[in-house]
Formats: sequence, structure tokens, C-alpha cells
Amino acid sequence: MNQDLKDLTQSLREFAREREWEQFHSPKNLASALAVEAAELLEIFQWLSENQSRELAAAQKEEVGQEAADVLLYLLQLCDKLDIDLLQAARAKLKANGLKYPVQSARGNSRKYTEFEP
Amino acid sequence: MNQDLKDLTQSLREFAREREWEQFHSPKNLASALAVEAAELLEIFQWLSENQSRELAAAQKEEVGQEAADVLLYLLQLCDKLDIDLLQAARAKLKANGLKYPVQSARGNSRKYTEFEP
Amino acid sequence: MNQDLKDLTQSLREFAREREWEQFHSPKNLASALAVEAAELLEIFQWLSENQSRELAAAQKEEVGQEAADVLLYLLQLCDKLDIDLLQAARAKLKANGLKYPVQSARGNSRKYTEFEP
Amino acid sequence: MNQDLKDLTQSLREFAREREWEQFHSPKNLASALAVEAAELLEIFQWLSENQSRELAAAQKEEVGQEAADVLLYLLQLCDKLDIDLLQAARAKLKANGLKYPVQSARGNSRKYTEFEP
Repeated sequence: MNQDLKDLTQSLREFAREREWEQFHSPKNLASALAVEAAELLEIFQWLSENQSRELAAAQKEEVGQEAADVLLYLLQLCDKLDIDLLQAARAKLKANGLKYPVQSARGNSRKYTEFEP
Repeated sequence: MNQDLKDLTQSLREFAREREWEQFHSPKNLASALAVEAAELLEIFQWLSENQSRELAAAQKEEVGQEAADVLLYLLQLCDKLDIDLLQAARAKLKANGLKYPVQSARGNSRKYTEFEP
Repeated sequence: MNQDLKDLTQSLREFAREREWEQFHSPKNLASALAVEAAELLEIFQWLSENQSRELAAAQKEEVGQEAADVLLYLLQLCDKLDIDLLQAARAKLKANGLKYPVQSARGNSRKYTEFEP
Repeated sequence: MNQDLKDLTQSLREFAREREWEQFHSPKNLASALAVEAAELLEIFQWLSENQSRELAAAQKEEVGQEAADVLLYLLQLCDKLDIDLLQAARAKLKANGLKYPVQSARGNSRKYTEFEP
């Protein structure tokens, strides 16, 4: 794992320990909290058109940043509890996706894209 | 942003460009995909007790790693599209949380915790 | 509560009892399962344009029906566990929304719509 | 479809038309809004134990009712747009589940339950 993410994980551990919140942080609960934060992120976009979503105002972008941060913070805590190296897992998944969706057959094909459910 | 996350983001850009998938990757769509992946992560835990979630078998842990990876990959792509520095946003959020939930009042109090909805 | 929904709820009770699945059906777990099913419904639409989502093929529409059904089935079970009259709650919420978003100020205004977060 | 649900669907149509909100109500957007509401429902339970979730205070139960209502209201609107009979779909799904999870093999087996991902 990368040093910045390690440091952030360590800060999150201390944050929870100081507040005696570890008791609430079972992997099950952290996965729920992560899904809730992901939905709060989605909420910002739910009524926007795709084009509007590409041209957010500064205040909306700030809000996206905060919700994205919440997602990462819970993701790091979940991986910490289960001793998962998130960065290594992400690299391995990207590599696997490369094999699963070969460039030739996947290219620009929205029907295939949909079927792939990537 | 940290170099490893920058590199991963760059790989994701190339991955999408090679497959001509940028057309599907509006921030709105990426936020949907992120929420879907977060739910797939939650699905692993939905019928487990909190204690069971702390003692996953190796195969389940591997599955969690893969879904966690998917969440990170979409999160990085979303932040890339909107020019958000995810790591900086996460540090800022953690700092803000420290002010929002002072150690003294937050400590070990599940009722407060719930009210806080952190 | 309406008789058809009562009958369906009763069938769900028997279904769970026969399989001895009540032990897994805490409100917390049912709420997770509901969120997971809602995400499976969203997954069908995640890469479609809004226009494409209005013109689904028969097979996709069938799939939407199945996921929508899963959402309703968990929603009914959750409400049953907590003794909530879903239909009455829905009518009350719609009435409250009418007061919250008066026709005059809400009309056709996407910016307002977004701020309303309805 | 049952008359109460038909009436509620009709009220929702009028509600959206009066406010000129139909433009935002593509099936894709309604599916997003549904997932967001399902997560707001989950949020109530995220830090509770399963036992606590069975013994909600009146105020929390009221909150669950309101979020459950939101889920149903979006579900009805989505099904209306796609001409899906929600109640019929739910009955068909329950019947299919009966075949998929035979009583004998499914009974009380949490491991099987998890594998079934019902």
C-alpha cells in the first residue's frame, strides 16, 4: 500500500479510537455506510442531464469532493479491518478487466458495453 | 495527488480511450456505476451478522477486495473527470470531521453517534 | 393497508417461515437487501442515455419488472416487521410533498428542482 | 394492478404534471432517485445492531415510514413510465423464488442463504 493511503488509514484508526467508535465499525456496518455515502454522491447528479454533470458549478464540485472523500474514508476503513491492500486490489482488478474486455470487441459498442456490465 | 493514484488514474484513462468508452463516462453515469459497485460490496455482508463480517473466509475476503477495487476505480474516474484531488479532499474531510465530532462529546455514545450521522 | 398488499405480505411471511429465514430478516438486514436490489435496478440503466431508458427492449423491461418486484418484496417485509402501513405512509408523504413544493414556485424549474432534492 | 396503487400512480402523474417535472422523470433518473431513497432508508439502520433495529423508537419508525414511502413513490413512477404492473411482477417473482429456493434445501441454512443471494 502506498504511504499516503497508509497515513490516512492510520489517522482514521486514531479518529475512531479516540471517539470509541470502533465498536460501531464492523465490516458489515462500514459497507452500509459506504453504500449510503455513494448514494449521497449520486444524489447530486440524479436530476442533472449528462451534459450538466460535466459542467458543474464550483459549489457543486466542492460538494462532490466532500462526498467522494466520505466514500474513500469508509473504503479505507473497511479495507483496514479486513487487511485488504486497496491499491493492490485496484491494480489487479484493472488488469483483470483488460482481459475481460479485449480492446477489439469492446470498442465503442454501447450494446456490448451494456452486456459487459463493467 | 499521490503518484500511485495518479498512475492508476492515467491507466484508467487509457483503458477507456482504447475502448472508446469515454462517451459513456459522464460524471452522472460514473456516479451511478459507483453506487452500483458499493451495493455489490454491501451484498456480500447483507445477511451476515456483524461478528461474521469480522471473520470472513479467504474467498469472501477476496470478493470484498474485488468489489472495493471497483469502487475505487470508479471513484478515481469520477474525480478525474471533475478535476478533484481525491486524496486532498479526503484529508480535508477528515479534518472537518474532527471539528464536527469533538472527542469529548462523541466518545462511545452510540445514540450521539447515530444523531451525528457521520 | 390494501388487501392485495396484505395478501402479498402474508405470503412473504409464510415464505420466510417455511425456510426458517426469519432469523436473517432483521429490519437492518432487510434495509440492506432493499438497497442492494434498488442498485440492481439502477444497474440496468447506468450506461443508457435518458432517451434510451425511455425505449427499453422487451427483455430489458422484463428485467426491470423483476428487480422492481424485488424492491417491493423487501419493502413490504421491512414494513411488516416494523408494523408500518406502507400505503398510508405513501399517501401521507405525497400530501406532505404537495405542501413542500407548491405548484407555483416549483413549476418546470430544474434549478429549484435540484435544490428541492425531492 | 390494484385500485389503490392505480390511484396513487394517478396522483403522482398529476403531481409531476402540475409542476412540469415530467422532463426530469426519465426511467434512468427515477431509478437513480429510487436508489438514493433506498440508501436514506438504510442510513437509519447503519450503526444500529440487528436487535436495536427490531426495537425502534416511535420517531425512528416514523422516519422509516417516510423513507419507505419515498421508495414506493419512485417505484410506482418508474413502473408507470415503463408500463410495468408492479403487483403482478411481485407475485410472479415470489412464485419464481419458491421454485428457486425449495423449502427442503433452503431451510435455516445461513450459508446456503448467503450463496443463494436471494
